[in-house]
Amino acid sequence: MASAQHAEGEGPLAIVCGGGSLPLSVAKAVQGRGRRVVLFPVHGWADPAIGEGFPHYWLTLAKVNGFVSNARTEGCSDVVFIGTAVRPPFLSLRMDRLTLPVLSIMLRSYRGGDSHLFDGVATVFERYGFRILGAHQVAPEILMPEGAIGTVAPVARDRNDIARGLALLNAIGPFDVGQATIVADNHVLAVEGAEGTDAMLARITELRAKGRIATPRRVGVLVKAPKPDQDHRFDLPTIGPRTVEEVAQAGLAGIAVVAGSSIIAEPEQVAVAADKAGVFVLGLARNGP
Amino acid sequence: MASAQHAEGEGPLAIVCGGGSLPLSVAKAVQGRGRRVVLFPVHGWADPAIGEGFPHYWLTLAKVNGFVSNARTEGCSDVVFIGTAVRPPFLSLRMDRLTLPVLSIMLRSYRGGDSHLFDGVATVFERYGFRILGAHQVAPEILMPEGAIGTVAPVARDRNDIARGLALLNAIGPFDVGQATIVADNHVLAVEGAEGTDAMLARITELRAKGRIATPRRVGVLVKAPKPDQDHRFDLPTIGPRTVEEVAQAGLAGIAVVAGSSIIAEPEQVAVAADKAGVFVLGLARNGP
Repeated sequence: MASAQHAEGEGPLAIVCGGGSLPLSVAKAVQGRGRRVVLFPVHGWADPAIGEGFPHYWLTLAKVNGFVSNARTEGCSDVVFIGTAVRPPFLSLRMDRLTLPVLSIMLRSYRGGDSHLFDGVATVFERYGFRILGAHQVAPEILMPEGAIGTVAPVARDRNDIARGLALLNAIGPFDVGQATIVADNHVLAVEGAEGTDAMLARITELRAKGRIATPRRVGVLVKAPKPDQDHRFDLPTIGPRTVEEVAQAGLAGIAVVAGSSIIAEPEQVAVAADKAGVFVLGLARNGP
Repeated sequence: MASAQHAEGEGPLAIVCGGGSLPLSVAKAVQGRGRRVVLFPVHGWADPAIGEGFPHYWLTLAKVNGFVSNARTEGCSDVVFIGTAVRPPFLSLRMDRLTLPVLSIMLRSYRGGDSHLFDGVATVFERYGFRILGAHQVAPEILMPEGAIGTVAPVARDRNDIARGLALLNAIGPFDVGQATIVADNHVLAVEGAEGTDAMLARITELRAKGRIATPRRVGVLVKAPKPDQDHRFDLPTIGPRTVEEVAQAGLAGIAVVAGSSIIAEPEQVAVAADKAGVFVLGLARNGP
């Protein structure tokens, strides 16, 4: 049952919870492996009901102390960050006592893209003696498997769109920009920036409603891949049932993500939603489609 | 007065007019050089008043005959395409007799990005014996000059953002995607896709209103550059007074475009708008900022 990474004798795991359903899935999976879990949901991001059934301490952003003292009391030395996060304006953050010694790291990390920010967060937590793990290290069942989820399969045109999308994401990797693109019949319709995947898909839905998308419905693929040198402990590309619905609304044929380095939330519901919408959901082997 | 490209004895110039103020600027500039101009405004795109003062024939998309017969009657063998265009869904186009022989070219060109589409349009017109020129070839005064328009100058951080933006646009050049990006304090906020520059800027305005942009106001640059192997006779990156206003609304510091291969509409109004908004507008030497 327990893998090498989850051997008995490990201390309890601290899970810093952002938004969405993934934090609870990870918490349940880790608990199911027999490891004690302590949740640290972030105010404004996490589901207000997430703490039910778990020991938990609500966190306020930039108040490092709220985490450090409680995690130490609970005996947690391993920490996982999981769930959606919205980066607030730096000046809106209210620091506390333990935040001040690491302020310069946080300031530096705020400059640049998300990968850069995560490096900074990791440095801060490690400075206080915590070890940061990726959610997929403690709950590998959340990783996207190779092959199709659901019964719909991509056609040759979709495979071509996937290859083009992967090549584009690879080309922009060094720029620490988005992890997703939309390619339809060899035409790049969108590249994800600060707006995120949901907003990018909504944009295509809107452009299509205005008659600005030349390709017909059921053509085009949402392609997601981790950045080439991304720290996999943070922010792996993630899809879930809502992604499937948004892809269907945008009139695309399917979703392709890199297997083993992408997260799938609620895979059973993803399969149901994909079959209902006639959308494919494909986990790509790392060496291409 | 007249350069080698606008020597006496040249026949009249056909200008196919899309939206915005540029078609009229180009028409006036060419006429000012002593060359006869015949306008072919496109229904739905061009300003309804654009024909005043010029011989003109309104065009309907995909009705090649409407252009060919009138342009021949007027003695035009040179054609310029200028102004904004919205690509309609292919199936909404209503073909005419002269369109049918070139339908397969048009169909092929509809697949892929804009550069690909323009190649197809050029092939079609050349098939009917017309020569396609870039608007900047007949009216070089519309090209963006090197240096600042207005009195605001970029600071070192802006220069860094410009360099990063240019590098990103260069990396995505092979994908025939957008010609613009927004970089703020080294962080790529947006990459232009099918939505166009205006919508990309509006997105940043919206994200900022939601507190999702970490950089303060007056930080960040809209960078535009032609695609590496773009056909410069079509669709050069273009800025105008509205771009300045949108950049100011998005809370950015300025605009940088490649001099000599970008178009500036209404430069006097751009200078006024830039100074009023405190935004820089910079024409970059081709070898970087």
